[in-house]
Amino acid sequence: MTMSTAARMLETYPGEPLLSASQLAECLDACFDCAQCCTACADACLAEEMVADLRACIRFNQDCADVCAMTGALLTRQTQPNVQLLRQALELCAAACAACAEECEKHAGHHEHCKVCAESCRRCEKACRDLLAAL
Amino acid sequence: MTMSTAARMLETYPGEPLLSASQLAECLDACFDCAQCCTACADACLAEEMVADLRACIRFNQDCADVCAMTGALLTRQTQPNVQLLRQALELCAAACAACAEECEKHAGHHEHCKVCAESCRRCEKACRDLLAAL
Amino acid sequence: MTMSTAARMLETYPGEPLLSASQLAECLDACFDCAQCCTACADACLAEEMVADLRACIRFNQDCADVCAMTGALLTRQTQPNVQLLRQALELCAAACAACAEECEKHAGHHEHCKVCAESCRRCEKACRDLLAAL
Amino acid sequence: MTMSTAARMLETYPGEPLLSASQLAECLDACFDCAQCCTACADACLAEEMVADLRACIRFNQDCADVCAMTGALLTRQTQPNVQLLRQALELCAAACAACAEECEKHAGHHEHCKVCAESCRRCEKACRDLLAAL
Repeated sequence: MTMSTAARMLETYPGEPLLSASQLAECLDACFDCAQCCTACADACLAEEMVADLRACIRFNQDCADVCAMTGALLTRQTQPNVQLLRQALELCAAACAACAEECEKHAGHHEHCKVCAESCRRCEKACRDLLAAL
Repeated sequence: MTMSTAARMLETYPGEPLLSASQLAECLDACFDCAQCCTACADACLAEEMVADLRACIRFNQDCADVCAMTGALLTRQTQPNVQLLRQALELCAAACAACAEECEKHAGHHEHCKVCAESCRRCEKACRDLLAAL
Repeated sequence: MTMSTAARMLETYPGEPLLSASQLAECLDACFDCAQCCTACADACLAEEMVADLRACIRFNQDCADVCAMTGALLTRQTQPNVQLLRQALELCAAACAACAEECEKHAGHHEHCKVCAESCRRCEKACRDLLAAL
Repeated sequence: MTMSTAARMLETYPGEPLLSASQLAECLDACFDCAQCCTACADACLAEEMVADLRACIRFNQDCADVCAMTGALLTRQTQPNVQLLRQALELCAAACAACAEECEKHAGHHEHCKVCAESCRRCEKACRDLLAAL
């Protein structure tokens, strides 16, 4: 996989990072990837004929997008880190991703966007849990 | 206090809300208020001559702004609520507000913006804890 | 109307502001108010039985929420202002609010949330245009 | 370059897209990439010893991050597109990226994060202008 710019930026940080760039990069990329994916899945669900059956999926997508974007922003910043806060954010993010993945997986057979989104959520859930283990 | 539009919108929700509008309104308003306040405090800190001494304050402000905006968005949505996720978001928000308030309070004697921001953070921390108790 | 904390924070800015707090306060409050209102209206539309007929409303709400939040953030920051960028943001925000108001007004007779949201959008559209005239 | 998940999601949209996935993908990726990069550059500037000389860079980074994230969200949604609004958002985004790039380029010789950020801003500025030409 090519390195994202977000991951490249980690290497340029002038201070003492709490975590190495290689530890952070996967979780950072997974968070931003998942945020975008969930925004797209909510919009694709809205365009489906059966939109009324996809209300939970849309809601879970929206929450997951907000939580992943917030977590990605906290992970991006390295100045004056607050480990306890980061841990809670990662726990929340893993939970939001798991909930959204579970819902999307129900529709993955019918809707390709739910299939791709579920994969992105599962990747982000795992990346959050891996980073929690490393913290 | 006049009711915010966000609070008024709660009354118009067509479904069965998980919580009453009166239970939600204070926490909702406190989250958005604190998000804006923290963005403003980070910017005001940046304009201070002694900006180098305010790095922690700026960082905590930025994280708190992101966490409060995310929590406010989750609280705003009432369709297909996920109580467990909401609880974790409120816990995180209370922690982010407490951390930011504690930092801002150190500078409240010198910087009016830190004083106002600390008050907004403490109000939001309390509102999150009150809502957690009600959930 | 009581002053919002966002408006109060404007008074605490330690540098030379581009605009007076009284000029900025109404637009700042209107932007954040409208952002929250649009997020709530999108969610309320999603809960309506006739959600399939409200796709445009949901989409316009979501875009308007994102644009208002961005504009509110730019207005909040006073350090090193970029007038040309602010002008373009205000033009975009007025346009997003006008488009969302127009769509919500179509449903205002049936859905109270669309009625309240349309009012919030029109207030924000006007506040952006007034600030543009003052810049 | 490997395809981002955001770009892959474009292919799964169930409705009639306004633009082809291949037209959108570069601009979408550039917007999200630039948003993350600018958040990281603001944080890295804050950690520099000479932070007081980087106030403009931090401010431009923050605005550019907000504008790129908003533009990326608008581009992600394909249901009920509003071409006029999209054009204004792309114009604003190109302007925010150009302003931020210009400022970062002044510091690119001293700070690697400003160098990487300026490149990301220039890529996003170009992608916005290319998409504007295609709209």
